[in-house]
Amino acid sequence: MIPTCLTTGATGVQFTSRARNRSRSALQDALQLTTRPGICSFALGLPGADLFPVAEYAAASEAVLACNPEAFQYGPPSVALKRHIVALMRRRGIECRESQILLTAGAQQALNLLVSLLLDRGRQVIVEEFSYPGFLQNVSVYSPEFLLVPTDFESGIDVDRVEWYLTKSQRPAFMYVITDGHNPLGVCVSEEKRDRLAALARGYRVPIIEEDPYGFLCYSERLSPPIRAREEEWVFYIGSFSKILAPGLRIGWIVAPEHLMERLAMAKESLDIDTATLSQHVAAHMLDSDFLPAHIERLRSAYRQRRGAMVHSLSEEFPKDTRWLQPECGVFLWVELSEYVDTSELVKKAVSEYRVAFLPGSVFAVDGCKGRHSMRLNFSHPSVESIGHGMSRLAELVTAACTV
Amino acid sequence: MIPTCLTTGATGVQFTSRARNRSRSALQDALQLTTRPGICSFALGLPGADLFPVAEYAAASEAVLACNPEAFQYGPPSVALKRHIVALMRRRGIECRESQILLTAGAQQALNLLVSLLLDRGRQVIVEEFSYPGFLQNVSVYSPEFLLVPTDFESGIDVDRVEWYLTKSQRPAFMYVITDGHNPLGVCVSEEKRDRLAALARGYRVPIIEEDPYGFLCYSERLSPPIRAREEEWVFYIGSFSKILAPGLRIGWIVAPEHLMERLAMAKESLDIDTATLSQHVAAHMLDSDFLPAHIERLRSAYRQRRGAMVHSLSEEFPKDTRWLQPECGVFLWVELSEYVDTSELVKKAVSEYRVAFLPGSVFAVDGCKGRHSMRLNFSHPSVESIGHGMSRLAELVTAACTV
Repeated sequence: MIPTCLTTGATGVQFTSRARNRSRSALQDALQLTTRPGICSFALGLPGADLFPVAEYAAASEAVLACNPEAFQYGPPSVALKRHIVALMRRRGIECRESQILLTAGAQQALNLLVSLLLDRGRQVIVEEFSYPGFLQNVSVYSPEFLLVPTDFESGIDVDRVEWYLTKSQRPAFMYVITDGHNPLGVCVSEEKRDRLAALARGYRVPIIEEDPYGFLCYSERLSPPIRAREEEWVFYIGSFSKILAPGLRIGWIVAPEHLMERLAMAKESLDIDTATLSQHVAAHMLDSDFLPAHIERLRSAYRQRRGAMVHSLSEEFPKDTRWLQPECGVFLWVELSEYVDTSELVKKAVSEYRVAFLPGSVFAVDGCKGRHSMRLNFSHPSVESIGHGMSRLAELVTAACTV
Repeated sequence: MIPTCLTTGATGVQFTSRARNRSRSALQDALQLTTRPGICSFALGLPGADLFPVAEYAAASEAVLACNPEAFQYGPPSVALKRHIVALMRRRGIECRESQILLTAGAQQALNLLVSLLLDRGRQVIVEEFSYPGFLQNVSVYSPEFLLVPTDFESGIDVDRVEWYLTKSQRPAFMYVITDGHNPLGVCVSEEKRDRLAALARGYRVPIIEEDPYGFLCYSERLSPPIRAREEEWVFYIGSFSKILAPGLRIGWIVAPEHLMERLAMAKESLDIDTATLSQHVAAHMLDSDFLPAHIERLRSAYRQRRGAMVHSLSEEFPKDTRWLQPECGVFLWVELSEYVDTSELVKKAVSEYRVAFLPGSVFAVDGCKGRHSMRLNFSHPSVESIGHGMSRLAELVTAACTV
């Protein structure tokens, strides 16, 4: 009954070529690494585990469980949580309505949704030369043409280059911008460039995906409002509770034009039906108590100290030709070493012999080539003490590598 | 600087045609409906809220929060939870290893992942004439050609037709099968057909996506093991805690061939990084106490009673030409009314005048035409008492509609 030609010599199931285009991100490997005991990891953008609002979560969870068994059920997105997000957005300088908010399973799902809705196979995408690998993983399945834009270490994305692309190219599917605390570079986009990006998006009718997981983690005076505060129709803003509450809750959101919300909700439904209902209810209850502003201040203060410890080591212990950007926002320090050091080689020795981990710059290079002498260091996860020890070991290794 | 031709007369952002192919599922609308007070809803496959293991969750949550702040963090998939799933699978007759399990945000995300990995645009898909709308929503963005298979109300999917397609067609991307407690028909696939499907998948090298959210909710003697128990390489099995613990946790899983796990994990990472870490840890802790077998017995017993109440009303209160399938598994009753009744019209009056909701059969028809005289009734969510009241009102309406 079944043709034997098919049953013999058969290899197993094959996935689509689209699926095979997606490459493994270095982040997942690094995540495995950081759970290995004895390794001091500067590799991932994890929040400090000592700063999680465990007591607030426990109290809210208890309250929700006591009075609301529907929190375990499928359910429409929590209106109470959306109301809190509207208020939070106002603190970031963004005016929006609950009807413009889509709840997602973290910022990553927001990114996946928007890319799937905006990007056709082979279309152009404007992106910086260094960018977030989780974004690249999502766009790569559509085999896009990348229009690569350099980043100025003081003022962020090169808007002249963006404009040049817009005048010369077919209309790209979108531009991807991490406005504050850029991942991996740590830089914030200048006020003037934010205005220009908003005007360019509007004028050329090319949407911006603006990712903002770090905007509340700023270390100097208040940041300028995101691009979304300057343009409603052409900006899809992505926010997240991962860095200000906890990643384990898996709650993020999109602020989008109202006329697109139904399509967004349909796409979200097909992905996973609901964002974890229980997390939604507990998060909403946590925010009822208005503890978040003080909690964010606590995070800022702790991360500012950790950044300070890392910068101190860089300036005191590392070779003199080491350069870095002191970020005013976010959780990453971008470090450039001597041109004789290849960080993707260095990291192996760092982990195996010096028990310290980081991510080599090339992980973030869209062309896969740049960043060979650079590394991204995270300062939010380790304690000040660990930073001291880990950075000393790393300095020792880097110094040895430079003098070879 | 910005061309005025582009700034005037501009409509707003447009999504890709792929995104526009996806239609809103009737389920989300029905979900909104069921939260309206005063409506007795048989519309959705919700678990009974009175049966959620709230105390067990609360205890486990407290224990996890007390000793494991890493539960709030990003993290590798919980090995403890995978171990419990392996044991659970064994109770379903499936032998698998932890390394063959991918944790997902519910069964829906599992479906989304597998469809995205297996389906190229325009390829053929074998599916029953009536199927789960959340599946159709996911495949529709790839504009597939559906090879439609009838379902026998006693023994499930028509395997002769499946085989006919396999001999005649180009190799389809996959077949989609809900082996036990079919949604919407409630039927289980016979033992003999399971064997044949496994052999066909293997022989023709066409994977089966086997969805099994209801397999533990069986009401008679033990069910036969799923297709996955008969074939490892060509079956992607989807399981879920939604119906046996709670949907609000958003935890499901895929059992897949080991050589494909890395690709699956990469796709999962790009979707949302992690399945809610906290839910994973709490679920694992809940299962440590081994309360699940007794809990499943409790669910079976309660749902068996509810099914009985619904069947009682159908046989006592509905017009004599009403036919239904008494399901041996799952949470749905498929009811066929007189050919003079159009259920998509009937449902409007049912909700507005009789305060009772169901889903018309046409919602589940892949061709959009069949099922005009049928409806799907859920019996797991309402209490026995609500079923009594709601079914009486529905019987009144149906009787009136049949005599007009």
